[in-house]
Amino acid sequence: MHTKNIHAHLDEIKDCFQTAVSVDCVIFGFDNTALKVLLIESDLKEYKGSWSLLGNIMRPDEDLDEAAYRVLRERTGLEDVYMEQIQTFGALKRHPAGRVITVAYYSLVNIEHVALKKHNNELHWHTVKDIQHMAFDHKQILDTCYERLKRQLIEQPIGFNLLPGKFTIRDLQNLYEAILDVKLDRRNFRKKFLSLNVLEDLNEAQEAVSHRPAKLYKFNFEKHELQKKRFLGIGF
Amino acid sequence: MHTKNIHAHLDEIKDCFQTAVSVDCVIFGFDNTALKVLLIESDLKEYKGSWSLLGNIMRPDEDLDEAAYRVLRERTGLEDVYMEQIQTFGALKRHPAGRVITVAYYSLVNIEHVALKKHNNELHWHTVKDIQHMAFDHKQILDTCYERLKRQLIEQPIGFNLLPGKFTIRDLQNLYEAILDVKLDRRNFRKKFLSLNVLEDLNEAQEAVSHRPAKLYKFNFEKHELQKKRFLGIGF
Repeated sequence: MHTKNIHAHLDEIKDCFQTAVSVDCVIFGFDNTALKVLLIESDLKEYKGSWSLLGNIMRPDEDLDEAAYRVLRERTGLEDVYMEQIQTFGALKRHPAGRVITVAYYSLVNIEHVALKKHNNELHWHTVKDIQHMAFDHKQILDTCYERLKRQLIEQPIGFNLLPGKFTIRDLQNLYEAILDVKLDRRNFRKKFLSLNVLEDLNEAQEAVSHRPAKLYKFNFEKHELQKKRFLGIGF
Repeated sequence: MHTKNIHAHLDEIKDCFQTAVSVDCVIFGFDNTALKVLLIESDLKEYKGSWSLLGNIMRPDEDLDEAAYRVLRERTGLEDVYMEQIQTFGALKRHPAGRVITVAYYSLVNIEHVALKKHNNELHWHTVKDIQHMAFDHKQILDTCYERLKRQLIEQPIGFNLLPGKFTIRDLQNLYEAILDVKLDRRNFRKKFLSLNVLEDLNEAQEAVSHRPAKLYKFNFEKHELQKKRFLGIGF
């Protein structure tokens, strides 16, 4: 077998070092009524009036994942939030400035938390299901991330990142209904979730509500790990 | 808000068009005993004696996903196989030739199918759990894809891509045991899987085996879609 060294290899592929890599963050939030996504007004004339995901070009001196966290931090002031790489989009003509492939991350945040941290007129929370058009291929990226979120929500307790630390079962149901875009039976939802044994009763009730105060719960991650094993179709 | 056009934007980011993007295919196969991965001997002097994933640089004139299918086709002769983008790896120093980020795809194939299609001395099926070192960051990529495979296997019927069209329950158990690296109780596995109602009894028995011939099954994808709804933790 013929072996070559890096220099020969580099020479062979040098025309390929002409791509830019960007990261785009799909930052989902929940306001107890609807699933929202944080968007920015595009600053490119070609996309004037369109909204885009919060993204930027990866710098030559930073890791890909670092770039994603930098974008999130720069745009929202947030650090230490749930963030996951979802998919890379690399269609030929997806960016008018040249060959740019983009790595999409999604982040699930408590919507009030973001609002408090940074006031920025160019950023807006949009209701996901009302969004029709976006700049670039960002609608496709949003749709892909939203589909992943729905799948994860029914397989894993990922949705808890979108809720405050203490929540009622009604809050939890609102979250599932908003994200999955379905109406669920209140009693069945309650019964099912309590039977899953992943919620911890805090022995506290809501305060300052006009209706009868509901019990507050938190999610118990340890219980979840045990529980997960029982979900597995093959039973170990 | 200040808007700019593409040319101004391009000027701003022109130094960023210096990245190469590659695809790496983690091609998993199963030989009824062990989970295997198809590797190639590295042709770079720096990595002589090391094995690497089947990959290549994305061309300037092809979509990212096209590049992945091209690599698979060029290396194995295979088309139309299950392939899924898993994760993009973009650490700073991951490639000695410069800034190369790589998009990892995994593919699940019937191992005999590949062997028949293409004979290539540089390609070898390696037992996944025996692999210690690989070229570049390919061990990390393999580990990531293997973890994803394990997760998918217990959440979805993805493993069926690794089996022939007709299989026995013992074959299926072998697959689960090999991938998850566990020993499962034969009777419980059988009972559990039959109760899942996703297998279709073909009313055929194995031929040319020395032991008592076992029944052959195929997977019923329609039943699975129904079944999936019942797996969901929240029951709709």
